[in-house]
Amino acid sequence: MHLTLHSDYALRVLIALGVADDRRSTIGSIAAQYGISRNHLMKVCHRLQRLGYVEGIRGKGGGLRLAHEPDAIRLGTVLRAMEPNFELIECFTATNRCVITQACRLRGILGEALAEFFKVLDRHTLADLLGNAPELAVLLDAGTIRVRRRGAERET
Amino acid sequence: MHLTLHSDYALRVLIALGVADDRRSTIGSIAAQYGISRNHLMKVCHRLQRLGYVEGIRGKGGGLRLAHEPDAIRLGTVLRAMEPNFELIECFTATNRCVITQACRLRGILGEALAEFFKVLDRHTLADLLGNAPELAVLLDAGTIRVRRRGAERET
Repeated sequence: MHLTLHSDYALRVLIALGVADDRRSTIGSIAAQYGISRNHLMKVCHRLQRLGYVEGIRGKGGGLRLAHEPDAIRLGTVLRAMEPNFELIECFTATNRCVITQACRLRGILGEALAEFFKVLDRHTLADLLGNAPELAVLLDAGTIRVRRRGAERET
Repeated sequence: MHLTLHSDYALRVLIALGVADDRRSTIGSIAAQYGISRNHLMKVCHRLQRLGYVEGIRGKGGGLRLAHEPDAIRLGTVLRAMEPNFELIECFTATNRCVITQACRLRGILGEALAEFFKVLDRHTLADLLGNAPELAVLLDAGTIRVRRRGAERET
């Protein structure tokens, strides 16, 4: 059981923006900070933009900005929007064909477990992830420096 | 976010055995009851056998039997054993390379959510899934009849 890479990256983007000066950055910078694929990140950022978590900045440099205060961005809401679904097993899907569905109690129990999972995530916002922003900023800067160094080594 | 088909099928096998007379059946019967692939089910049953949830029966007819009382088979334990892992995002894995890991609070929050998910599943056993065994038995029998009818139609 795992979340998609898109959900993982969406949370990383929100953290990077939350930590950045004026809460703005660029896809290239965030990709360099984490050392991850710029292409992957573009799709994730477009989705975050469409969902209203992030705004594009036009003009000088361009980039992205958090569209809300971090304490208004609930982690449960972000994951519900980013994951394709939370259909734990077949009977959660629209195409379910399990013959015992109408009498089976498993779906109810798994549904209760999922509800408890989300209760924790709905208690937390992006602000909770930024509690130690200075330390996060140092680690993200170190990421960028590593990428630059690797680039310089390739050129020499 | 979803469980694997193997986890889904493992729970179906345990339900079918729990409902069956003497809590014994065969892979062929269970496959027919649910109308699912016998090959898939064989792998799942071997795994359940290796994990000690199910015992093979030698001799006349052979088959499978529940190795424990239903109230001794905890759903959380079954899923922990059947799922390859519960590594929600990269930082849960042994190959994690996320640069902010040492300062990031996301893993703690997701870990807490996962713990609450399992708390529900650990409160429930197979016995809870068999509370309405007679109704489940009727639905499973109906499944078998559907498969037999399809077979007969093919032969005519």
